[in-house]
Amino acid sequence: MPYEPTDYRPYDFANRRHIGPSPAEMDEMFATLGVDGIGALIDETLPDDIRQETPLETGKAMSERQLLWWMRQIAKENQVLTSLIGMGYHGTITPPAIQRNILENPAWYTAYTPYQPEISQGRLEALLNFQTMVSDLTGLEIANASLLDEATACAEAMTMAGRVAKSKSKAFFVDENCHPQNIAVVKTRAKPLGIEVIVGDPDEMDAGSVFGALFQYPGTYGHVRDFTDHMARLHAADAVGIVSADPMALCLLKEPGAMGADIAVGTTQRFGVPMGYGGPHAAYMACREAYKRALPGRLVGVSIDARGNRAYRLALQTREQHIRREKATSNVCTAQALLAVMAGFYAVFHGPEGLKAIAQRIHRKTARLARGLEEAGFVIEPEEFFDTITVEVGLFQKGVLAAGVREGVNMRPVGSTKIGISVDETLRPAKIEAVWRAFGIDRRDDPAAQDYRLPEALLRQSAYLQHDIFHMNRAETEMVRYMRRLADRDLALDRAMIPLGSCTMKLNSAAEMMPLSWPEFANLHPYCPDDQAKGYRALIDGLSGKLCDVTGYDAISMQPNSGAQGEYAGLLTIAAYHEANGEGHRNVCLIPTNAHGTNPASAQMVGWKVVPVKCDAKGSIDLEDFRAKAEKHAADLAGIMITYPSTHGVFEETVKEVCEITHAHGGQVYIDGANLNAMVGLSRPGDLGGDVSHLNLHKTFCIPHGGGGPGMGPIGVKAHLAPHLPSHPLAGEGPGPVSAAPYGSPSLLPISWAYCQMMGGEGLTQATRVAILNANYIAKRLEGAYKVLYRGPKGRVAHECILDVRPFQESAGVTVDDIAKRLVDCGFHAPTMSWPVSGTLMVEPTESETKAELDRFCDAMLGIREEIRAIEDGTADGENNPLKHAPHTVEDLVGDWDRPYSREQGCFPAGAFRVDKYWPPVNRVDNVYGDRNLVCTCPPMEDYAEAAE
Amino acid sequence: MPYEPTDYRPYDFANRRHIGPSPAEMDEMFATLGVDGIGALIDETLPDDIRQETPLETGKAMSERQLLWWMRQIAKENQVLTSLIGMGYHGTITPPAIQRNILENPAWYTAYTPYQPEISQGRLEALLNFQTMVSDLTGLEIANASLLDEATACAEAMTMAGRVAKSKSKAFFVDENCHPQNIAVVKTRAKPLGIEVIVGDPDEMDAGSVFGALFQYPGTYGHVRDFTDHMARLHAADAVGIVSADPMALCLLKEPGAMGADIAVGTTQRFGVPMGYGGPHAAYMACREAYKRALPGRLVGVSIDARGNRAYRLALQTREQHIRREKATSNVCTAQALLAVMAGFYAVFHGPEGLKAIAQRIHRKTARLARGLEEAGFVIEPEEFFDTITVEVGLFQKGVLAAGVREGVNMRPVGSTKIGISVDETLRPAKIEAVWRAFGIDRRDDPAAQDYRLPEALLRQSAYLQHDIFHMNRAETEMVRYMRRLADRDLALDRAMIPLGSCTMKLNSAAEMMPLSWPEFANLHPYCPDDQAKGYRALIDGLSGKLCDVTGYDAISMQPNSGAQGEYAGLLTIAAYHEANGEGHRNVCLIPTNAHGTNPASAQMVGWKVVPVKCDAKGSIDLEDFRAKAEKHAADLAGIMITYPSTHGVFEETVKEVCEITHAHGGQVYIDGANLNAMVGLSRPGDLGGDVSHLNLHKTFCIPHGGGGPGMGPIGVKAHLAPHLPSHPLAGEGPGPVSAAPYGSPSLLPISWAYCQMMGGEGLTQATRVAILNANYIAKRLEGAYKVLYRGPKGRVAHECILDVRPFQESAGVTVDDIAKRLVDCGFHAPTMSWPVSGTLMVEPTESETKAELDRFCDAMLGIREEIRAIEDGTADGENNPLKHAPHTVEDLVGDWDRPYSREQGCFPAGAFRVDKYWPPVNRVDNVYGDRNLVCTCPPMEDYAEAAE
Repeated sequence: MPYEPTDYRPYDFANRRHIGPSPAEMDEMFATLGVDGIGALIDETLPDDIRQETPLETGKAMSERQLLWWMRQIAKENQVLTSLIGMGYHGTITPPAIQRNILENPAWYTAYTPYQPEISQGRLEALLNFQTMVSDLTGLEIANASLLDEATACAEAMTMAGRVAKSKSKAFFVDENCHPQNIAVVKTRAKPLGIEVIVGDPDEMDAGSVFGALFQYPGTYGHVRDFTDHMARLHAADAVGIVSADPMALCLLKEPGAMGADIAVGTTQRFGVPMGYGGPHAAYMACREAYKRALPGRLVGVSIDARGNRAYRLALQTREQHIRREKATSNVCTAQALLAVMAGFYAVFHGPEGLKAIAQRIHRKTARLARGLEEAGFVIEPEEFFDTITVEVGLFQKGVLAAGVREGVNMRPVGSTKIGISVDETLRPAKIEAVWRAFGIDRRDDPAAQDYRLPEALLRQSAYLQHDIFHMNRAETEMVRYMRRLADRDLALDRAMIPLGSCTMKLNSAAEMMPLSWPEFANLHPYCPDDQAKGYRALIDGLSGKLCDVTGYDAISMQPNSGAQGEYAGLLTIAAYHEANGEGHRNVCLIPTNAHGTNPASAQMVGWKVVPVKCDAKGSIDLEDFRAKAEKHAADLAGIMITYPSTHGVFEETVKEVCEITHAHGGQVYIDGANLNAMVGLSRPGDLGGDVSHLNLHKTFCIPHGGGGPGMGPIGVKAHLAPHLPSHPLAGEGPGPVSAAPYGSPSLLPISWAYCQMMGGEGLTQATRVAILNANYIAKRLEGAYKVLYRGPKGRVAHECILDVRPFQESAGVTVDDIAKRLVDCGFHAPTMSWPVSGTLMVEPTESETKAELDRFCDAMLGIREEIRAIEDGTADGENNPLKHAPHTVEDLVGDWDRPYSREQGCFPAGAFRVDKYWPPVNRVDNVYGDRNLVCTCPPMEDYAEAAE
Repeated sequence: MPYEPTDYRPYDFANRRHIGPSPAEMDEMFATLGVDGIGALIDETLPDDIRQETPLETGKAMSERQLLWWMRQIAKENQVLTSLIGMGYHGTITPPAIQRNILENPAWYTAYTPYQPEISQGRLEALLNFQTMVSDLTGLEIANASLLDEATACAEAMTMAGRVAKSKSKAFFVDENCHPQNIAVVKTRAKPLGIEVIVGDPDEMDAGSVFGALFQYPGTYGHVRDFTDHMARLHAADAVGIVSADPMALCLLKEPGAMGADIAVGTTQRFGVPMGYGGPHAAYMACREAYKRALPGRLVGVSIDARGNRAYRLALQTREQHIRREKATSNVCTAQALLAVMAGFYAVFHGPEGLKAIAQRIHRKTARLARGLEEAGFVIEPEEFFDTITVEVGLFQKGVLAAGVREGVNMRPVGSTKIGISVDETLRPAKIEAVWRAFGIDRRDDPAAQDYRLPEALLRQSAYLQHDIFHMNRAETEMVRYMRRLADRDLALDRAMIPLGSCTMKLNSAAEMMPLSWPEFANLHPYCPDDQAKGYRALIDGLSGKLCDVTGYDAISMQPNSGAQGEYAGLLTIAAYHEANGEGHRNVCLIPTNAHGTNPASAQMVGWKVVPVKCDAKGSIDLEDFRAKAEKHAADLAGIMITYPSTHGVFEETVKEVCEITHAHGGQVYIDGANLNAMVGLSRPGDLGGDVSHLNLHKTFCIPHGGGGPGMGPIGVKAHLAPHLPSHPLAGEGPGPVSAAPYGSPSLLPISWAYCQMMGGEGLTQATRVAILNANYIAKRLEGAYKVLYRGPKGRVAHECILDVRPFQESAGVTVDDIAKRLVDCGFHAPTMSWPVSGTLMVEPTESETKAELDRFCDAMLGIREEIRAIEDGTADGENNPLKHAPHTVEDLVGDWDRPYSREQGCFPAGAFRVDKYWPPVNRVDNVYGDRNLVCTCPPMEDYAEAAE
């Protein structure tokens, strides 16, 4: 054998690592599908007239090593200074055990939202810990499982107050001491809803003229005040009181609940989650028990399983947008699950003694810093504070800030003559001295000094974190094992395909994830001077350029923190455009009935009237109905919201016509980017006629799902809309911001950037093709057993397919739920259930799954079909069968067995691994029981003991 | 409640994170033990006269954050240049998925050596992949599961050749083209064994005068030659041929097996394991089937479990030192398991096509580089090569090397007029140009150039890596799931205590582990210029100082890569000392019968005669016997080897007397440091009379066990021995080296350094106290049920205790094995079995375990005692009982159950978690079957299919 050079590319990320099927597997799949190759399949799938004409320009693919080298260069462009800027963003110490075992562990970061509770008990417990922590610290009964950021939480609290207040006022009071970004986002949210926002001094609030009021605690300039009287005045006027509170301060200070607050919000960022130039972090919201049904966001609750054992699951889901659509409490559908888990673990890791000690250290350092300034003659306010002070510097503001930067410290400009300083747990004595030097003071810090400047009357009187989980042995050995036990209870992408239609999950590669933990990306404050964030700037510009190329848009805003927030931001942009054109009256939004539930919920948030458009028998937009409604509402038409390819998994041929009709009637076109992963490189929403789209970075651009967040939903717009994109939160003008941080959750952007770099234009396009191939392969293999709803004219589906299981309800009494739970026995997360069509399963495999895994899934589904058939033909019992008893647990195996089928059949259906089988920790969870007996904090330990017996 | 400052230290690593029992738990333990506090317990445990007088000086404890900050500063002192030095150490690309999911995953790095196969199937499979890879690449039938480094492997191969060769010669030939460190270590090893090492040109070898010969392939200067004729000549003379081969070269070149080699060795470092300034990496050894029983090191083999299903386990253990003592094939007991797993995964990750392509890229870059030099007029040799060339530069050697450093490239000085250049997969075209610039050449690299300089006659003719595992779908999704499945099969420290007496495992904290992955520690060549390794230098000096303080010694050598190698190095040091004193004849070594099996094996390696010393009924050294033997052998007494506290877990009161007697008779005292974790801060071997000790960094100083390596066994010596410590491998003089790299496995040292820094002197001392507390607590709780062998005069054990289970053999037919396997059902790794006393269990919990975990273990052991009692009193069957059927698997549960006890009793004994139970993937493994039917490479896939049926 002579020397044969090979052109095998060992470092090829796109084809060897990211895309699941190997070339040989793809050939087998082509044979199954009866196509000549991937080009032929795409020709049969995508309408000709929507194909993009030129290939993507995103450049040559990098190897993992090249990528990481480039990342290092970009990281070096970010300068990490000590941040004393505050405003809700603080330096924090992520315990290394949490960093390694949660943030850097695929078992946690690749998990999906815990809608299937049987395979989510670990993260549900971790989120329940978070809720318990929030409830305890705020002194309010119910806390949700996190929100996107503090400013959004403030806005959500305002609208929630609107829903629950008996007051009929349309005005809302906002404390002038709120962080400016909170005020800005509240104003943005209020405007389209017709809410008047009154910003002022709390002591001058006219409680009788508002339906609610928001206070910041401690205030953005450091003031710590008691809002008990304000709450009483609000309550007397049937209005609702909201406190946005720093949870670290609550470790020492009187809690909002004790002041009579109805709702508390805030951010848990400083509980171990790096600043990340703005995010992601978990905001929180807590409220009185009475308001629980009005609470937005996800809520973990305690229930029981089929054996009566304790089990967790998401509670009160009927509040949510996927059920209530425009009547939902909010369009929120992403939480910040991974970050909430981290913050919850930070509390478990430190316990109440630890948190209190940390808060005290922060306070004492602040007091020392203040004394140094005062003894040098500076005037600081307030006199009593927790961690933040403001210093009068007159004409020297810029000079002191610049001196601070030279000393490696960022401080906050307040007005034009003051400087704000916020202290955190990471501040070291040497840096306190550096601050003094920036003020011209030569002084040594004395860490032993016992200065306290907390207001005596506001010291916290109540205990918190009393549950045993916050008093567990905090040895790292025990903490690591607890994290591992929770992780092992869950089924995430590191063990099996999660074939969720519309919300699917693709590979989050290790190379993409690694830079997330680097200090240069993790430790920047969102409002640090621009010249310290040049790396981020380069990354954001670079990624924006790539996203424009992919979408055919002209400008990108990175601000929205989730797809739903992207929708909202996109509609706001359209509304601002209409208003700038003197057509602010346009407020009708046409939405096809097959839309995501978030679409109508988002339209409602910008104050639009939703007019539904029918779908035809194929699930596509009924063009006649559409045309008629567009004409009818032409005078007021604000826009339409369509999803492409449709939520039915089809490339509708009429899309361009729909866009043209809309434009002809003065409307703008919002193309929901949820399914962009079926278009990248093949077709561009901007070319189809879209004016704006959001891009779901987790689904299309590889940011991890994190068990229900982080999310990231940048929006792309055509040039005419660019001036109306969300503005900087501190800008004080323009359309207003939708998020607290100017670029949303920037520390996630390296992931998507890395993905684009390692795929290159051809790789990204191939990913789209293979996503379509994989979906069609599944549709083909299952088509004899299940009816595949909705196909294109040539019989192909797009990137997902809908399996109709409704007939089995009648033929065998088998529900979509039964099939979903049976899939757990097979070692799979269920596909999307009952959406967009009730009683169906929507399957989306993504390009990252191998043929072998697709086959395992198909084998499982075919096995299930046979089990249904056995019921249909009477060989299996209608109630006592593997489908109804699914999922099966070790408890089933170990106990008495009185079923007509065998243990073997119950536990090892087709598709299940033998040695490596995933065992769910609970049997089927009873949702109704949990909603009837709502418990949303950690149950007392005695209950655990009982359950164990 | 007024403001109460607290002195709770939230960032305290020592007491809150590293030490398991909380203060409250410790109080309960004191009550159980009937002592007033930890001081009182230590007073009852440690003899007064061995207590150290002054506390440790290792400084104030750092927090995790401080530590990582310091680590960053130290890291910056290391300069990472592109290394072209070669000599067996090469830049390599660690696939990020392997880095994150193996190297940085506690499920892999906290695992123990797979002696208990039922809980080790994952890493056994990974190691079998490694063995298969080595066997395939070398073309030899049997490969072991790794050795410490290439040089050690060469030395082991020499002694193995001595065992198997029929030739009676005492001379061994070594190719002058071997890497100098390989020659040096071989010489060190040969000398005490009386082997004459002949270094020379292979073509001039006198095969008839040697028992074996070692060749390097490719040679250290780049020559690639065929050793087929040399092998034939050796075989004709009844001698054994050994090739030390670069596995990357073997992807293109004729394999040693095809040349007729009997043994192949080498290092798999460049298969994805960073250079780490010398280690750790996995060396390999492969041999002909006929020599399998002479092979040193661990060997994974295939067997079956009690149900006849395939199961892996360590094969042919009777070869090993824990059974054969001085008759063992080697004193090797540590392998480089974690690194072998990584290298094996690198092969799985790339497959044969990928490895071949990587090898070709390396070769082509070398050829381009060479052509550039030649075309500028430089003379290079050899004419044909794989990745290494040598350039004649005359007087300009230093100048070119310095120019290279300025260009960011390290090259190798060869002789005084040549420069060696070795290319690896990381070399980029820009750096090829940098090399040319260092030679004064201005030239552009053309990556498309097709230069090949491989010898046509030596191109590899045979296929390799044909097994399906190397052809699995290499999508990252699939790779990650495979790694996860393997990890989940195993029980490691991240799930449960591993209470191994003598080999115990304590916390490997995340903060300690993190710097290991930083490029500044990972990417240094062991022979890079000293001024590029200042960070390492500071770390080594700092850690040496701390270890001297801890041990009472005056100097440390970091060179030994395992405890056993430390023993060997320590004895060599003593031998060199005697020789320097003109007493080279001293060759008698007294070893008590309770010694580690490695002790006599190590003494044998330095050519000493082992004279056993009796132990008394309490398991302590019989002082009279000792005195008599010391006197008898006074003229030839080289030294003694004792373990302190003893392997029986007792602080013997006579230790100082034993040392004095030894010194009085001219001997030196080797104190085995295996149990140093019971002394740190309380007593120092150097003060007791020890002259030399090894320190087991994994057990005492937190380096992870990695599933059976890496290890690290530095030795400490008194000042008089310091000149005789192992010398630098390239020094060419002095006592000689024991390892290839001057500091052993330096990339592990940050871990131990971090541990010392975060504990501080008091923390380290408290760790010792709590290790003793934990052991005594277990002894106390179990003493009614099990006889605790060996206690000190006040009834206390040291840091471990021996449970006598021999009586149950007679009373109930229950063996130590039955108990060990039953503990798997309880979710525990078994304690050390049948050592140091046959038929016993030795338990060592370490300080890192919480009381709750100790209680879980004790509950399990007490439950087992009751199960034994049921057999004793006839209520349970003698054969058909949970002990004999242990461990129980899901297969037991799902199948028919015809046992007299319930499934519940079988699977959920006391101590077992309910929801979080660990399920072993196989039933009890049949060791005899596997040794009778030896298979040490991956079985064909059809076999898997059969097993599945």
